Amino acid sequence: MTMRKKISKHAIGVFDSGVGGLTVVKELIKQLPNEKIIYFGDTARVPYGPKSVKSIKHFAMQDTAFLISQHVKLIVVACNTVSSNAMPLLQSSFSVPFIDVLKPNAELAAHTTENNRIGIIGTYATVETSTYETYIRSINKNTRIFKIPTPLLVPLAEEGLSGTTISQEILKMYLSSLIKKNIDTLILGCTHYPLFEKQIKTIAGKDIQIINSARHTALCVKEELHRTDMLNKTTRQGKIEFYLSDIPRNFNKIARRFLNRPVKNVKHIDIERY
Amino acid sequence: MTMRKKISKHAIGVFDSGVGGLTVVKELIKQLPNEKIIYFGDTARVPYGPKSVKSIKHFAMQDTAFLISQHVKLIVVACNTVSSNAMPLLQSSFSVPFIDVLKPNAELAAHTTENNRIGIIGTYATVETSTYETYIRSINKNTRIFKIPTPLLVPLAEEGLSGTTISQEILKMYLSSLIKKNIDTLILGCTHYPLFEKQIKTIAGKDIQIINSARHTALCVKEELHRTDMLNKTTRQGKIEFYLSDIPRNFNKIARRFLNRPVKNVKHIDIERY
Repeated sequence: MTMRKKISKHAIGVFDSGVGGLTVVKELIKQLPNEKIIYFGDTARVPYGPKSVKSIKHFAMQDTAFLISQHVKLIVVACNTVSSNAMPLLQSSFSVPFIDVLKPNAELAAHTTENNRIGIIGTYATVETSTYETYIRSINKNTRIFKIPTPLLVPLAEEGLSGTTISQEILKMYLSSLIKKNIDTLILGCTHYPLFEKQIKTIAGKDIQIINSARHTALCVKEELHRTDMLNKTTRQGKIEFYLSDIPRNFNKIARRFLNRPVKNVKHIDIERY
Repeated sequence: MTMRKKISKHAIGVFDSGVGGLTVVKELIKQLPNEKIIYFGDTARVPYGPKSVKSIKHFAMQDTAFLISQHVKLIVVACNTVSSNAMPLLQSSFSVPFIDVLKPNAELAAHTTENNRIGIIGTYATVETSTYETYIRSINKNTRIFKIPTPLLVPLAEEGLSGTTISQEILKMYLSSLIKKNIDTLILGCTHYPLFEKQIKTIAGKDIQIINSARHTALCVKEELHRTDMLNKTTRQGKIEFYLSDIPRNFNKIARRFLNRPVKNVKHIDIERY
């Protein structure tokens, strides 16, 4: 067996600060059903969004080091906060290929907008960096970008309150200023937000295209594995393993909400060791 | 100078998972203006509420070890999640006196109720233990206790959304089931919740007594220092130092909201070293 053939049988590594990255896993399962997936959620230190850039970088290095120890062939950074704050550091520190959730969606948004006005919602750490702007303007330099932090959406999603009148009120509060800016494209800049996609569509109206970060990221993973000849050629369904830095009491309930199916193979690891 | 006189000049240590404990600091400043205070907020790992008991205990041991390294004379555990999950461990591991936020408020509630029906709101970790019941029933064994987790209140408080129609809707959703149980006393079982005291009073109505955990805890600290002759006899105003495991980007804004005054002397420490 050649080296490449051997590596192609390795798992795809996916990490996030918590459970949000499971929306990406859901799309990976749909688009790449035969791939093994190893997911790491840093549930002991979630959320990353309000924390300092220094802490976010330190956490991201440890999360990656853990997945590398599991011999993954590619790492999906399924966290917008890490994607917008730590990618140059990760790419210069590790030789494994990375797909983050920011670049694919920034590119898609840049090609989607017709009036060159794009809105972005995300955590504090995501909206305070200029990473989205850099990517979008490298494709379409006339684009105007309007960003707002929407920090309540993560706890609302984890509490199962997507689809309720409470989340409707909070989304209206957050989105009203973006709608006034006459945007025609809105990036859901956090892997938790696909759970609010329907409600956001209703509030935003049919003139605003919604960019769901999970779906397009999974497509980019597929393309990258195809391009580098690392697709797993097996016809068996891929196994999925979950590692968490803390097992929250209601993890199975929350995970089912994100993944739309029951979660097995959940193990605890001490992330401080990596 | 005698040993006791020397120790009386040491600071009061206060810790919390994040910034909520500042409501206790605010009351300590009011009731004990001449005491030095050293505050530690574990902002790198906040929130503790949804995490496992194992992680909560591990974090609490490290938080205490840090304060001990600062030679504090007494430690206030200004976090209901730690108070309800880790006090026996802390007390058997360290010889410093502890005041937690749970016992004083459980006692006050037990003496306040007239119909023996007490409500408690708090994090998942707080409401899932039976620590409140144990204390309350040791005083008043006929009490019926009704508990609900209210996990959205912490992010709402930190986002400055106390006093808004959104927090009003969320509080109504949470409190309606407790009000139906005909409680006459409600414990705010989280140090963030005093920020919602006014709104909760409006929703609960005048027949329900609200137990604000910060105020009564500070009073217990004063009594304990007086009882053990450890009050600082100086007439100078006490200095306050803040240590955090992460300096969140909007810490000063949030802290001012909890403390009602600007925050100085904020230092970063690596809590994993303790």
